[in-house]
Formats: sequence, structure tokens, C-alpha cells
Amino acid sequence: MPDATVTLPPSETQEVSAPLLVRAARRQQGDGLPVWFMRQAGRSLPEYKRVREGIAMLDSCARPDLVAEITLQPVRRYGVDAAIFYSDIMVPLKAAGVDLDIVPGRGPVVAEPVRDRAGLERLVPAEPGDLGFVDEAVRLLVAELGETPLIGFAGAPFTLASYLVEGGPSRDYARTKALMVGDPELWHDLCARLATMSAHFLRTQVEAGASAVQLFDSWAGSLSAADYTTFAQPHSARVLAGIATVPRIHFGVGTGELLTRMGEAGAEVVGVDWRIPLAEASRRLGPAYAVQGNLDPALLGAPWPVLAERVRDVVRSGAAAPGHVFNLGHGVPPETDPDVLGRVVDLVHEEGPTLRAEARAV
Amino acid sequence: MPDATVTLPPSETQEVSAPLLVRAARRQQGDGLPVWFMRQAGRSLPEYKRVREGIAMLDSCARPDLVAEITLQPVRRYGVDAAIFYSDIMVPLKAAGVDLDIVPGRGPVVAEPVRDRAGLERLVPAEPGDLGFVDEAVRLLVAELGETPLIGFAGAPFTLASYLVEGGPSRDYARTKALMVGDPELWHDLCARLATMSAHFLRTQVEAGASAVQLFDSWAGSLSAADYTTFAQPHSARVLAGIATVPRIHFGVGTGELLTRMGEAGAEVVGVDWRIPLAEASRRLGPAYAVQGNLDPALLGAPWPVLAERVRDVVRSGAAAPGHVFNLGHGVPPETDPDVLGRVVDLVHEEGPTLRAEARAV
Repeated sequence: MPDATVTLPPSETQEVSAPLLVRAARRQQGDGLPVWFMRQAGRSLPEYKRVREGIAMLDSCARPDLVAEITLQPVRRYGVDAAIFYSDIMVPLKAAGVDLDIVPGRGPVVAEPVRDRAGLERLVPAEPGDLGFVDEAVRLLVAELGETPLIGFAGAPFTLASYLVEGGPSRDYARTKALMVGDPELWHDLCARLATMSAHFLRTQVEAGASAVQLFDSWAGSLSAADYTTFAQPHSARVLAGIATVPRIHFGVGTGELLTRMGEAGAEVVGVDWRIPLAEASRRLGPAYAVQGNLDPALLGAPWPVLAERVRDVVRSGAAAPGHVFNLGHGVPPETDPDVLGRVVDLVHEEGPTLRAEARAV
Repeated sequence: MPDATVTLPPSETQEVSAPLLVRAARRQQGDGLPVWFMRQAGRSLPEYKRVREGIAMLDSCARPDLVAEITLQPVRRYGVDAAIFYSDIMVPLKAAGVDLDIVPGRGPVVAEPVRDRAGLERLVPAEPGDLGFVDEAVRLLVAELGETPLIGFAGAPFTLASYLVEGGPSRDYARTKALMVGDPELWHDLCARLATMSAHFLRTQVEAGASAVQLFDSWAGSLSAADYTTFAQPHSARVLAGIATVPRIHFGVGTGELLTRMGEAGAEVVGVDWRIPLAEASRRLGPAYAVQGNLDPALLGAPWPVLAERVRDVVRSGAAAPGHVFNLGHGVPPETDPDVLGRVVDLVHEEGPTLRAEARAV
């Protein structure tokens, strides 16, 4: 803590007054521990189901009033330390005219999968005005949120490409990988275009006031480290390079072998799933990165005393990292009891600082 | 190589004449490289689709003539170095009276999921005679196969339990994990019973003449190493302990963090998926274990020159391990072109020994 009698230079003054999430990303949180949940907006909340009734997913993403309301709902209910913009990684593609839908219970479905040069040429990045509804929603939100930071987000080129090439969700990404290794030139051109679209989506959110961003490369963990480095990382790096003014979180599932490369792509915070303890993830990443995670969302249905002990384990393990943002290891499952998430937030807020202080003293 | 003029003790004589797969498992293969594929029997072969026409999956597993024919088909077509018994990990449960079906395109579906003590009590292991059709099929096969070894197999208790508790395939194993951590006594009783059933299934195959076994813990990679060690490994170890007379292969997907524990469960060979190079897997496992794998099955649709180079990479990386069985990193996808698998086998046989010799000389 700086001595109150000393006049701080502007940058340090800023740090002290920055939101806890931003300080954690900058490895300056002390014992404070911010908490938010991937997919906290939407899905499991009854108030979400009410406002979404009769409105298709992608239509809801295009209505700034609805986006703001849905983004705010979990902040009101849980008192989490950050809002995550309610949208979908496919939104910039939809705005650019790609014929796609988010099918309930299935995910993004693309009418004409992209598998050749002609398919790529149909993919024309949006004009600046095409994401006006995103800009408007973020401005509404930032005004409403006050001190609570808003996290903007986008999909990483590899994960976006997997939906475009497969035409929908996939178990093995066979068409994606066959295209990737079989026609690297087409692959890199496709990912470069997707990087432009994701960067534009992110920049729109940051310029409208988002305090941090998260790049979702949800399915990167299906790649070996060598393939990730060749075919995915350079494109994610281009997206992240355009947003260096705010803390950048980089997340994927099953990425234990990719953590250092995901950090090197240009992030301050690397998201970790539940397969690796945060202390071990931080050991692999080194002192330059904060970590985010990593409670197993499948445990949200466990009896509370057991779940509470798991939450404490995550807090203790995260204390070994130079920065920690508490989160799940993946998104909130649709069937989650919202009261359980509320108890997790309360536990992190009530016990987090003490647990961190104890763990860091050892 | 032993000097030909020296009289070898019986055990070494045996080793020299043992099938290449068995020698690889015992880390005595030299430059020879055996190859087989998980799911080589069934699924993608046209001759398989012909004989299965109009016969449900689990019915086909109960007919020894059909099991033998389907198991032999890929051996005839590809000249692989091992046959894998055509069956399903759920067969011993079906034989014990569990109401379940294998639904095409979906997987095992259990009519009454097991989620409490009463459900567990309904699970009565089969009597010795209940797997008579397995014994008969293996005997038919061993007589037909001649020099080619037959690999028997079973499901590991964690993976079997996940189907029983969820009632079918799952993305996140939420009910399974909630039961596991929430009622450990019930969990361990359930897995102990499943271990008895799997061990009985395996023993039936080994006593009838199988030369090796593979324990499939396909979904173990969804667990952290700590949870794997507490909740899965002891039960898999019990299954494997009962079959110590033949080489034991232990396989799961996404198990980079679990490899050493899967070896310690009592295997000679640890199966590795494509996320980790075999040389790195072997480094983690140490000199006491052979490895199996690990071509990414999603690459089987890539242009042949690219795929061929990937096959060579796997062979070279595997040469760093004290033993290597060439395989995919997971099962053959249903849409695979059989000719491609044939070319992979030919490449491994033609170039494998030279590539191994070169890699081992470095």
C-alpha cells in the first residue's frame, strides 16, 4: 500500500482506483479477488428466460435495450465484479451477412459452410456502421454499470473457422483440420479475415467503454501445441494486438499444453479450465501472466459443503499466481441453480481475501 | 540380439517368438512397429455395414459368428498387427441385465440411470455362464487369427459409471461428478461393482485366448489429476490387477495430465491422444512404459502427402519411447475412407523400421 502522505504519479493513482478485475489482470490485486462467470448473462437465469421469451438468440443480440438488460441481470443478482457483454462470437459474422443461426440446444449453424476459395470470398467483413447496435448497447451498459467494469469479448479465428467450416458444432473438427493442414493458404486467408472481423467487434466494444476483453478460443484445446502455434496463434495474436489498451483475457478448454502459447499471443490473463490446478498453470505461464478460473462447472450440482471446499481450493491455488480472477473453468451450464452461483460469489467475497493472505504467507 | 549359438532360457525364447504387439508392450520390439486402430472393427467398413444390416449393435455383439467375422474384417483388409475384439464396453452390463441400448449416432442409452443406493443394488454382476458368447467368439477368433494377436477390451469403471449415472453420453458429466464428490461411498461402491464386471469381461477374453487387453477410460480426461487419483484410478487398478498375465494397454482421451497415473494403475502400455507428442508422453511416463498412439483421426481426411508426413512424425516421436504401438489418438471416425487406413498401415510397415532406426540413432 502506498503511504497516504506521498503524492503518487498519475499512473499509480490510476491503478489504485482501477476496478479489482483490472488490477488482478495487472497483477496488482493484493488479497482482493474479483469473481465473474463465463455465461453468467443468459442461459440459466429465470429473469433472462422471461425477457428472451419469443425472441431468437441472434435477434436479442441486435437489440441494445435487451442486451443491456440481460448483461445487467447477473450483476444485480450476484454482485459479481464484472459484467460480460451479452452477445455471441458469431455476431460479427452475422452482421457481415453470413447466413447463420444459433439453434437452441445445439449452437451456431451455418447455412453454407465455407470450404473453398469461393466460400471465403463470400465472407466480406462488416462496414464500421454494421456494428452500431453493439456500440449502442455498450454505451448504455457503461452508463448503467458505474464502477463495475464491462468485459467485451469475441471469438478467436480458429474457433470461428471451426463453425464456418463444419457448418455447426463438431466433436472432432475433421473438416476444419483437413482444410487447415491440406490447404494452409486458404486456411490462413480465412483466419486473417476472421481476425479482422473479431478485432473490429472487440474494438467497437472497447471504444464504447469496455474495461477489459476476453478472446474465446473455446476449441483450441483440440489442437496439438505444434498445430496451435502454426495455425491458430498468429491469428489470435493479430486480434489481441489491436486491443492493447485494456487487459486481455485469453481462454480455451483443455488447453493445458497451450497455456504459454496463449499467453504469448498477447494476453495479460490466461483462462484455465479445471483440469490443471491454477498454481500449476501459473508455474507453466511464469510471472508475467495472471490466471483466470477454474472451478469445474460440473460440480455446481454437488452438495454445498463439498462445493464450498472446492471453491476454497481454487482460491488457495490461485493465490500462487501473480494475479487471479475467480471464474468457472468453462461456461455456466444451462441447468445451474442461480442460488448456488450466488453462494459461490458470496463465499469468494467473504473468505477470498483471508484465504489468499493465508496461502500467500506460506 | 542374443547370439544364435547360445541356448536361451525359456522366457527369452518366448519373447523372440511373441507377436510384435506383445514385444512392443514389453519394450523389446527393436525397430519393428506394430499398428492397429481403435474401432478398426466395424463403423467405417462397407463389409461391416453389409453383415450388420438389420441387426442391432448389442444383438450383433451376442452372436459369436458375427463377432468373429467383424473382428476379422479389418485384419484381412489392412493386414494390421492385431485384431481388436468386436464388442462394446456396455456388453457386460447388458449381460448382467441392465436395460440399455446402443443408439446409432448417439451411443449407450440406459433406461433407468443409476443415481442412488437402490439403483446400485439393481446392478448384479453376471454369473460366469452369462458371458459364454464372449468366450465362444474369442475361441473362434483365436483359431482363425493364427499368428495375429487378439486384443481383448473392457471399459474402465469411471467411464462405465458416467454412462450409467448420466443415462447416456454427456458433454460435462455433471451428474456423474456431483454424485462422485457428493456421495463418495455410493460412488466407490458403484465403481467397485463395475470393476468386478469389467474384470470378469476381460478375464473371459484372456482365458479364451486374447494376447493383450486394452482398458478404455475414454472420458477420464474430464477429471483433474487429483480427482482421477481419488475416484477413478483405484478401480481401474483393480480391473488391471486381475489380468497381469498379458500386456495391458490403458487408454483415455485428453489425458495429458493423467498419463503417469494411468501407467501406475497397472499397465504396460499407455495410450496417448494427439494433443501431446509421443516423445513428451514418454518423458512424462518414464522408462518403464511403452506408449500407444497417436495420429489425430481428424487428419484422415487430409491430402495423402500431408497425412503421410504426419504418420512419419508419429513414428519418429514414438521412437523416443522404450516401446511404441502405432495407433490413432482415438477411434476411427465413421466416415473414414478405408483405403486411407490401408495406406497408413502400408506406410507404417514399409517405412516404420527405417524411420525408427534413424530416429533412435540420433
